[in-house]
Amino acid sequence: MAKAKVRIVFCEGCKWALRSGWYAQELFSTFHGKLAAIELVVGESGQFQVWANDQCLWDRKEQGGFPEIAELKRLLRDCIAPDASLGHCDLEAGAE
Amino acid sequence: MAKAKVRIVFCEGCKWALRSGWYAQELFSTFHGKLAAIELVVGESGQFQVWANDQCLWDRKEQGGFPEIAELKRLLRDCIAPDASLGHCDLEAGAE
Repeated sequence: MAKAKVRIVFCEGCKWALRSGWYAQELFSTFHGKLAAIELVVGESGQFQVWANDQCLWDRKEQGGFPEIAELKRLLRDCIAPDASLGHCDLEAGAE
Repeated sequence: MAKAKVRIVFCEGCKWALRSGWYAQELFSTFHGKLAAIELVVGESGQFQVWANDQCLWDRKEQGGFPEIAELKRLLRDCIAPDASLGHCDLEAGAE
């Protein structure tokens, strides 16, 4: 299976570059060997979206806020590697 | 002038994703409004390069290591916004 390409589109004026860089670090760490690239893209005012290939995993204006990192990892896993275990992230989801 | 696109190509096996994410955060902070995107790309073994549009600013195998963040900012500034001041980074360079 081809490695996935993630794209994080963020509002620079809202100072979400730090958050976006942190998300990227978390995703590379958890999805080691499964990602080809993560692109951090300066978007429009108030915009925050996370895409996996051509699928939108998260849109702040739809979902009303930001994903917890564990939730974002579950969404990405379900999209690109549905059989992979996320360890603690899955345990947390089960406990909810 | 069109906003610049930066690309950081790193070796995932060498665990340079954290470093790459940190560089991205620093560059977005310093070059606010001047960047369109920063792409973090999983490269080959031992590879670490920083590109601004189609120009290679840094290649670990050529330069023998990693850039200090102030040096990387100067290289990027010289490439995409030669008239911009970098404040402390320029002062440090003048003191070298």
